Amino acid sequence: MAGPCSAESEAQVMATAAAVKRGGAKVLRGGAFKPRSSPYSFQGLGEPGLRLLRDAADQHGLQLVSEVMDISQIDVMARYADIFQVGARNMQNFTLLRELGRTRTPVLLKRGISATIEEWLLSAEYVLAGGNTEVILCERGIRTFESYTRNTLDISAIPVVKKLSHLPVFVDPSHGTGRRDKVAPMARAAVAAGADGLLIEVHCDPDHALSDGAQSLLPSQFDRLMAELRIIAPAIGRSICLETVARRGWGV
Amino acid sequence: MAGPCSAESEAQVMATAAAVKRGGAKVLRGGAFKPRSSPYSFQGLGEPGLRLLRDAADQHGLQLVSEVMDISQIDVMARYADIFQVGARNMQNFTLLRELGRTRTPVLLKRGISATIEEWLLSAEYVLAGGNTEVILCERGIRTFESYTRNTLDISAIPVVKKLSHLPVFVDPSHGTGRRDKVAPMARAAVAAGADGLLIEVHCDPDHALSDGAQSLLPSQFDRLMAELRIIAPAIGRSICLETVARRGWGV
Amino acid sequence: MAGPCSAESEAQVMATAAAVKRGGAKVLRGGAFKPRSSPYSFQGLGEPGLRLLRDAADQHGLQLVSEVMDISQIDVMARYADIFQVGARNMQNFTLLRELGRTRTPVLLKRGISATIEEWLLSAEYVLAGGNTEVILCERGIRTFESYTRNTLDISAIPVVKKLSHLPVFVDPSHGTGRRDKVAPMARAAVAAGADGLLIEVHCDPDHALSDGAQSLLPSQFDRLMAELRIIAPAIGRSICLETVARRGWGV
Amino acid sequence: MAGPCSAESEAQVMATAAAVKRGGAKVLRGGAFKPRSSPYSFQGLGEPGLRLLRDAADQHGLQLVSEVMDISQIDVMARYADIFQVGARNMQNFTLLRELGRTRTPVLLKRGISATIEEWLLSAEYVLAGGNTEVILCERGIRTFESYTRNTLDISAIPVVKKLSHLPVFVDPSHGTGRRDKVAPMARAAVAAGADGLLIEVHCDPDHALSDGAQSLLPSQFDRLMAELRIIAPAIGRSICLETVARRGWGV
Repeated sequence: MAGPCSAESEAQVMATAAAVKRGGAKVLRGGAFKPRSSPYSFQGLGEPGLRLLRDAADQHGLQLVSEVMDISQIDVMARYADIFQVGARNMQNFTLLRELGRTRTPVLLKRGISATIEEWLLSAEYVLAGGNTEVILCERGIRTFESYTRNTLDISAIPVVKKLSHLPVFVDPSHGTGRRDKVAPMARAAVAAGADGLLIEVHCDPDHALSDGAQSLLPSQFDRLMAELRIIAPAIGRSICLETVARRGWGV
Repeated sequence: MAGPCSAESEAQVMATAAAVKRGGAKVLRGGAFKPRSSPYSFQGLGEPGLRLLRDAADQHGLQLVSEVMDISQIDVMARYADIFQVGARNMQNFTLLRELGRTRTPVLLKRGISATIEEWLLSAEYVLAGGNTEVILCERGIRTFESYTRNTLDISAIPVVKKLSHLPVFVDPSHGTGRRDKVAPMARAAVAAGADGLLIEVHCDPDHALSDGAQSLLPSQFDRLMAELRIIAPAIGRSICLETVARRGWGV
Repeated sequence: MAGPCSAESEAQVMATAAAVKRGGAKVLRGGAFKPRSSPYSFQGLGEPGLRLLRDAADQHGLQLVSEVMDISQIDVMARYADIFQVGARNMQNFTLLRELGRTRTPVLLKRGISATIEEWLLSAEYVLAGGNTEVILCERGIRTFESYTRNTLDISAIPVVKKLSHLPVFVDPSHGTGRRDKVAPMARAAVAAGADGLLIEVHCDPDHALSDGAQSLLPSQFDRLMAELRIIAPAIGRSICLETVARRGWGV
Repeated sequence: MAGPCSAESEAQVMATAAAVKRGGAKVLRGGAFKPRSSPYSFQGLGEPGLRLLRDAADQHGLQLVSEVMDISQIDVMARYADIFQVGARNMQNFTLLRELGRTRTPVLLKRGISATIEEWLLSAEYVLAGGNTEVILCERGIRTFESYTRNTLDISAIPVVKKLSHLPVFVDPSHGTGRRDKVAPMARAAVAAGADGLLIEVHCDPDHALSDGAQSLLPSQFDRLMAELRIIAPAIGRSICLETVARRGWGV
């Protein structure tokens, strides 16, 4: 899964979708409703952004994952996205989780910034208990005292979850580190530790991104990373975009 | 502000309201919609619970604060509560905050379990930007490595916020510690550090509480604590239930 | 216990000692061997600094507490100090603790910056097991994600330790917050929560201090704080410098 | 680098040394002086333990790394070990670091359990400033709120340090996770993220180990892990035990 943090314009979305498709991604990621700490930051394009993302996904044969922040957005999101993303800040928005449990659309559930693994799995239960069995867990970094990286990506959560749950575990090294040059090493580490998939921010012009440009890969960096991952995957008996893909259409 | 974690029955709500009134509380606290980590835990009584709380508050001349978890609950909550509580897990539920900014009901905004003070103040901006100026901040403990207490109550957040913002700062020593015998020392510490008010769980029969019994004070413990606070408040040039009360109806 | 972070000159030590005595302190604190994160920062005056501190303490009828960083410093420190301080970085320097257990000089054991309460009490056991029963625990802040304060002073550690151990608990609000204007609120909070004593940095000219000036109180601020503490102490059935003092010569 | 947590007996040391040699390790690790949180836990065999380790290393053509806890142990340690290990608890024992800076023996400096990367590099400066340029940094997990693993291994520290410093970075997945079944995934992640070497606990009979048995690999698990690492290393342009080994005698 790869793509821009936010949909910003048609040109940006199209160029990025083409690039991630070429690199080997199966799913396009991109936000239309952006949860931002400050009410004065860019808040996303809303439904027009979703339309841009959907068009780009269709044109390149990609699926689309995008974040839903509130139950009031479920209907509109359902018209465009193949997978609902629940952000870290909403990991314990139980009203939202319960409602998503009533749909049959896959849910990518990000781990809260200070959620224990137990709380994360219990939040997944809110969706599963409603009958929606398509839940993907996504580790995206926890808050610690270290400030060189935006968060501390908890790679050890991968083997822990693999032992406690049958659910697939993805990793988001872009938000997890907040720095472009740390994305590739952490993506490699995630795959080596057994992650089932990755969620990576790619932007065709990251220096002019309206959000999170500093952590977005350039398309050429994304290509190089995918090549490295194809070497690592066999070490744990997997091949990139094969096994899981057959079942779900994305992942390692 | 004092009262049970959740409304459970008429007898429990009435007995507790009478006790906290006698101890000197100005506001009754109590939950009807309970956000619980697990979908299989007690989830609150819903609207019937709100009705019990409202009756008890009226009978004892108390105001009522109760938690609203989602925009879909705002209307029903507005019919019963004088103050909307936003829980720690919803501190960055921006859709909810924005909607509460359109009301003119005071909002008690709890700090997220791993929110920085800056993020907390920015979340308050979501409410303030909508024109609702009645925001009360409430420190309720942050997540650290220490496990003797459920969370680490960040008492130093009080003087930090007093310097950065004009908003009143309350403290919830019940959730902040998770242990009954730590509530009184931390409540005293909060007042000594300059807190504008306290949110304390009191239960007439904590050993049979459906949630958070282990951290609820007995009515007699609440009385003793209020007596101690009346000694401490003058050290910082305040008197319990006077100055702030004149302005808002609660607090130190 | 009050005094400068480091001994810097005769004039500075004498002026500060006079000021803290006037404010009501029983023990002079001051470092001669300074543990600094960087090898290129001011490292303390060494034995000449200790001599200055001892003279100032004697002249004002104060006891002296100073930090010992290594077993090689115990002998020289024993000639000057009444109480050995073990810094947070050395809380698990077991060789040092074992050696101090063989002396009969009181040991002020600071909590490590990320030590659990259990580890802290086990470190005290290293001293106690050697037969030295005079151990004072000192909370000085733990490391969390919050960065407005240098550390997060864990006030709740006070009631926790009071329940688990017979040892007295002191608090160092100067290192715990790292900011002068937060020292008084946190000192008041510590006493209100039941602390047995305080360790406060006071400097007659903090803007020119060679270390930690930003967190040192001016003498006039120290006087005002002591007056506030005399109001708070009775709320928990104590009086400043009376009860504990009779037994040990310092504290609340 | 691999071997037991502590030297316990001749049979245990010999069997383990043979096993790690067979698996491809270049350096034997093993403690003779053990820093333990409690004074009542096994404290290590002391000099006789060092002698056992030295003999086993010689017999199998391995180097020996062992922990030195205090300046008083440097001389005896120098007679047996090829590399001095400084443990996490001693990362800011500046007296020890300064003294090791006067030797010309390589120093493996573990990161403190809550040390920032900046503090870790500054501690290395204490050794480097003395003229000893052979410092190896070793990440071993930081303390966070998550409790499924003993610590949270900070894999992102690897690319951060590679950018800030010329020093080699090793990783200790055994202490970093505290659980045997998490060691292999995290070792693979470390190599994939660019680590220069690994420090792994291997024990021929971990269920009867006197310390840290629960996190020690069985020899057969160690062999399998080494095979996996040989697949991953080329993804980042390296081969196991070649490049770095030529220069220093160990590592990736």
